Amino acid sequence: MINPIYEVIGLSAAFLTTSAFIPQVYKIYKEKNADGISLLMYIILFIGVILWLIYGILISSLSIVIANGITALLQLSIIIFKLKNS
Amino acid sequence: MINPIYEVIGLSAAFLTTSAFIPQVYKIYKEKNADGISLLMYIILFIGVILWLIYGILISSLSIVIANGITALLQLSIIIFKLKNS
Repeated sequence: MINPIYEVIGLSAAFLTTSAFIPQVYKIYKEKNADGISLLMYIILFIGVILWLIYGILISSLSIVIANGITALLQLSIIIFKLKNS
Repeated sequence: MINPIYEVIGLSAAFLTTSAFIPQVYKIYKEKNADGISLLMYIILFIGVILWLIYGILISSLSIVIANGITALLQLSIIIFKLKNS
């Protein structure tokens, strides 16, 4: 287990970098338009985030697992939206 | 120290999620235009990435330090460009 004080820093980091991503998801759903989004870029990002998730589980880092778990779900919702609407 | 095999997974993750960010930086420099970029969002992301960097140093994770070190530099270059050109 990682020192809980370190996890407070990690979870703060997770909150900031993950929540910065939410307006993009909101914009796509509101406008029902994902034309400005590169599907390939999102698929590459998604694979990267899944690898981060595996890494976080391997090193028992709660911050990495939470941050990348939420990000993976957000990215998957964008990829599915993009595939359905193009 | 984290198991080197785990770091291979972490560094692969770092490579994928960091390189996905490069086309954005290239586009801004090529077009000399960052109008589509939210300064506030980049500042929030930058603070988050700096916290990830501190977290990575605290838990001795090479993958987190490398990924967030490079990302911080890329984001800082976008923030400076945006401040200079607006």
